[in-house]
Amino acid sequence: MHKETHVTSSNIVRDIIIGMADGLTVPFALTAGLSGVLDTSHLIIVSGVSEIAAGCISMGLGGFLAGQTEVEHYDAELKREYDEVERVPETERKEVEEIFMSMGVDEALSKQVTLQISQDKEKWVDFMMRYELGLDKPDKNRAYQSAITIALAYLAGGFIPLFPYLVTSNNQHGFYWSCAITILALLVFGYFKSKVTGQPLLKGTLKVAFTGILAAAAAYIIAKMIS
Amino acid sequence: MHKETHVTSSNIVRDIIIGMADGLTVPFALTAGLSGVLDTSHLIIVSGVSEIAAGCISMGLGGFLAGQTEVEHYDAELKREYDEVERVPETERKEVEEIFMSMGVDEALSKQVTLQISQDKEKWVDFMMRYELGLDKPDKNRAYQSAITIALAYLAGGFIPLFPYLVTSNNQHGFYWSCAITILALLVFGYFKSKVTGQPLLKGTLKVAFTGILAAAAAYIIAKMIS
Repeated sequence: MHKETHVTSSNIVRDIIIGMADGLTVPFALTAGLSGVLDTSHLIIVSGVSEIAAGCISMGLGGFLAGQTEVEHYDAELKREYDEVERVPETERKEVEEIFMSMGVDEALSKQVTLQISQDKEKWVDFMMRYELGLDKPDKNRAYQSAITIALAYLAGGFIPLFPYLVTSNNQHGFYWSCAITILALLVFGYFKSKVTGQPLLKGTLKVAFTGILAAAAAYIIAKMIS
Repeated sequence: MHKETHVTSSNIVRDIIIGMADGLTVPFALTAGLSGVLDTSHLIIVSGVSEIAAGCISMGLGGFLAGQTEVEHYDAELKREYDEVERVPETERKEVEEIFMSMGVDEALSKQVTLQISQDKEKWVDFMMRYELGLDKPDKNRAYQSAITIALAYLAGGFIPLFPYLVTSNNQHGFYWSCAITILALLVFGYFKSKVTGQPLLKGTLKVAFTGILAAAAAYIIAKMIS
């Protein structure tokens, strides 16, 4: 038996990756940038925590509201398609036929298939939603879960670069340790991300680490320049 | 002539929305948070600019690398599908038939349609990519353009809340003006976003403004609490 082994990762893993990628990068870059110009690690912590709170809410709530909008958009289009197969069935049938012809099916057969699909209004609308509009039915609960998962992953990721500043009052030490553990965390995260998304491990890992390091370097240099 | 008027926004508009939504929210929240605890507006500016640099790179470069990965993933799956229609054509034909049967087409007709599609290997693989795997051909140049657009929109959005701190040395004044112009900007942005994405205008506008205000309030309260 032939088995399809295309790599897919579960939604929750995907959300953790989304939240953690930014969570490890932006608070790391911000605190690294500030460590070069602020006197006490206390202010770095305040900035880092503020950023994490803002980032969590922006990504989490923003994602949740976007998910809600997607549900509303889907419902509106669904209603419209039901309305259209009722009002202008011939035009809608023509659209289905054209989709089949673009797949490489000849006209006569396209008409036949279309006739069968349009027997059942639900299947017909389902077909239009999916293959004409490219819309998959969004899950309202998913938006909620997704928002929480992304926000928590951002939070977890963001606390890694912040941690060293919490245990030392020396900014310079905090900065070195923050770089060390965050780069390590980026490498570990990049490795797992590459693994679950089926990317080449070395290349995928380095991409993640490179993004974080570049962001931190830019923030550090810019903060030094303008302060 | 019946005309489909489903709302779609161009890719570039979509990217501007993605970048600006976060750009208006996170730097606003961060600078608002810090304005309550830092003595000089200078440090707020340094923090804000550092955050904007980090956010631009994380969203821009992160998005670019993700786009690249998508292209690689697509190419790998394409190669695999070409390989499969060569090695196990019967199994692949069965998969096409099953897709048609799930659309509401009967078995005999599904077999006929499948036979036609599988005449042309390119169309066949195209069908599998699209309707079995749900993958659309990604555009490599798009990833590049998209990254630049998102980063610039983040930059543009981020400078709005920062601007008042640049023109006043009084933190309190900076904070009030930053709130005023950023909330105004969030409302204007929310309005245009709702317009181009076809959402109800009032609701869509308020959602965007609410996210920004909540993020700023959270950052402000948290910064006050821990400082």
